[in-house]
Amino acid sequence: MSNFEIKCADPGSAARRGVLTTPHGQVQTPCFMPVGTAGAVKGVTPEHLSQTGAQIILANTYHLMLRPGVDTVEKIGGLHKLMAWDGPILTDSGGYQVFSLSSLTKIDNDGIEFASHVDGARFRLDPRSATNIQNRLAPDIAMCLDQCPPFGCEQKTLIEAVDRTVRWAKQCKEAHSNPRQMLFAIVQGGIDLTMRQQCAADLVKMDFDGYAIGGLSVGEGHENMTKTVSHTAPLLPENKPRYLMGVGMPPDIIAACLAGIDMFDCVLPTRNGRNAYAFTMAGPVRMRNNEHINDSGPIERDCDCYACTHYPRATIRHFFNVGEMLGPILTSIHNLRFYQRLMGRIREHIEKGDFARWGNEQLANAHIWASSNNKEQ
Amino acid sequence: MSNFEIKCADPGSAARRGVLTTPHGQVQTPCFMPVGTAGAVKGVTPEHLSQTGAQIILANTYHLMLRPGVDTVEKIGGLHKLMAWDGPILTDSGGYQVFSLSSLTKIDNDGIEFASHVDGARFRLDPRSATNIQNRLAPDIAMCLDQCPPFGCEQKTLIEAVDRTVRWAKQCKEAHSNPRQMLFAIVQGGIDLTMRQQCAADLVKMDFDGYAIGGLSVGEGHENMTKTVSHTAPLLPENKPRYLMGVGMPPDIIAACLAGIDMFDCVLPTRNGRNAYAFTMAGPVRMRNNEHINDSGPIERDCDCYACTHYPRATIRHFFNVGEMLGPILTSIHNLRFYQRLMGRIREHIEKGDFARWGNEQLANAHIWASSNNKEQ
Repeated sequence: MSNFEIKCADPGSAARRGVLTTPHGQVQTPCFMPVGTAGAVKGVTPEHLSQTGAQIILANTYHLMLRPGVDTVEKIGGLHKLMAWDGPILTDSGGYQVFSLSSLTKIDNDGIEFASHVDGARFRLDPRSATNIQNRLAPDIAMCLDQCPPFGCEQKTLIEAVDRTVRWAKQCKEAHSNPRQMLFAIVQGGIDLTMRQQCAADLVKMDFDGYAIGGLSVGEGHENMTKTVSHTAPLLPENKPRYLMGVGMPPDIIAACLAGIDMFDCVLPTRNGRNAYAFTMAGPVRMRNNEHINDSGPIERDCDCYACTHYPRATIRHFFNVGEMLGPILTSIHNLRFYQRLMGRIREHIEKGDFARWGNEQLANAHIWASSNNKEQ
Repeated sequence: MSNFEIKCADPGSAARRGVLTTPHGQVQTPCFMPVGTAGAVKGVTPEHLSQTGAQIILANTYHLMLRPGVDTVEKIGGLHKLMAWDGPILTDSGGYQVFSLSSLTKIDNDGIEFASHVDGARFRLDPRSATNIQNRLAPDIAMCLDQCPPFGCEQKTLIEAVDRTVRWAKQCKEAHSNPRQMLFAIVQGGIDLTMRQQCAADLVKMDFDGYAIGGLSVGEGHENMTKTVSHTAPLLPENKPRYLMGVGMPPDIIAACLAGIDMFDCVLPTRNGRNAYAFTMAGPVRMRNNEHINDSGPIERDCDCYACTHYPRATIRHFFNVGEMLGPILTSIHNLRFYQRLMGRIREHIEKGDFARWGNEQLANAHIWASSNNKEQ
């Protein structure tokens, strides 16, 4: 039985409109997964999160294994209980954060040793333990442990990372023992299309429940990302969900959907929201700006989110100005809803069969995001 | 026409069960008003606030006049629009915060001059301007500008404060020009029963919409507070609402209801909530404590708040541990609901006619709060 069904395909692009079935419900794809790093989408209650239209959320294995720890999550009944979220959850493998957050990291062919960024305690992650941890956390979807090479690294490093990623994926699959949980593999290879091809081919042979493209949105830029995704997506099985990890800004998502990607996750809606950066269909709005002081209108006209249907811009600006938590919270809620509205539009246009035209129009208009500077947020 | 109706009185005490009618709806009394200092009950959306059972909220004139400023509030359509709250709102006069928060304060018989705690800008509040500001903010209930003498001050200071409070109340009443807004006077006099008597008598002659007892919960302790409230409440008109400002811990509220108080406000549910202090019917629970690490139960059994019906203690402890905003938010929501449940019980027992017995039982059990140490939070 397959967990993923394609309802229709866009005639003018590789985009697909699908349904992913998980033990905690169905997900309409293409979908966007808000990031609940350490058991919470920062500052947003599951009630408000659900109102934004989020169908599935992501949690970080790295953060959860450090605090509160796998024992605690297991003892209280799993990740859904911890997060008070009864919809689908995906966990990453922890590999990416080990490199981006922890220190004293040592990697060898068998796994990764690292010191916690919280208290320096030493941990080890290998394919078996990363899989076992995710089996115990009990999300609906687990990810294989991979090695994400830095952008612009030497070819030798890239090859080594792809080799390990493939070898570790095999070990993860062998170790995986939760029949109610899907396991996705991750394609690495930087922006080297040959490496991507080889990595994808090796992983596809192993028959995973889904496939992710990792190692992008690490500084390569929109062009390189789009080229890599457009090359890699068609190498993955058509009848399995395809997930582009850690992406991204609205034009990145639209371009990736055109290439046939089904799933996304990104911290931008919440991270930028906490920094007073609101996403709107007309581009970014900085909520601290003076122009909003006496503005009785919502963040975005036509937005049906909780913030826009209840609060004037003047209040949200005021909240940021006085350090009131509701400023970050309301802007995060708006941004999360913005991303879900964006995905809703994408799904609608795929269903109507005019996504190629609409998507390319949006991409031609991508300059509205140019001042966004989101990497600095 | 009276805005306040007493539905029934407790046979064994001075407690009353009433209904206060405001332009934004009815309030069942005795009631508790959560404090929305600068336009928000900190960290709590109006949706969650409403779910706690809050019927009326308080906002601080002092904070709002500094930021975002009266002009802004007026321009966007008033305090209800600013706060996204369409139920009743009461504003204080700003007098109390001028003394507790601002600096370089100079008081004379005509008013108070002070420097903003935000940027040092100089402001002046007098009975006319304090009333005018509240007319423009447009809450349902405005408070007269008063002078709150510090606990333990000299008799001369106390007399001066009471004199000014009475004189200013008269001027506030003359300046008050919003026919849709009630105006309450504030009785001062420290714990000097003669001064309270004189102040109450002078204010009652002026016929206000309601009467507050101010200047308590400033260090005098539960005994002195109860004695002063029990002495002062019967001096106020029976057919007008009586409001005990800034109070307090659950036993303080119960004792004041026994003395015939109808309205309360206090920052404790939210301030303590942000500091991981949860109120329960069995006494305080410290949410950071190790004992909660693997606890899959709610903060309080039988509590129907959003936090208790969704999250285990283990998660809330974890949120405080990792600095996740939802820790303070969920504990604030629980505490706000605790206070509303307390008020609900008080109203039920008054209706049943056994409030004196129940209330005194609770007071006999007040030692459960002894370790609370809430002043240090």
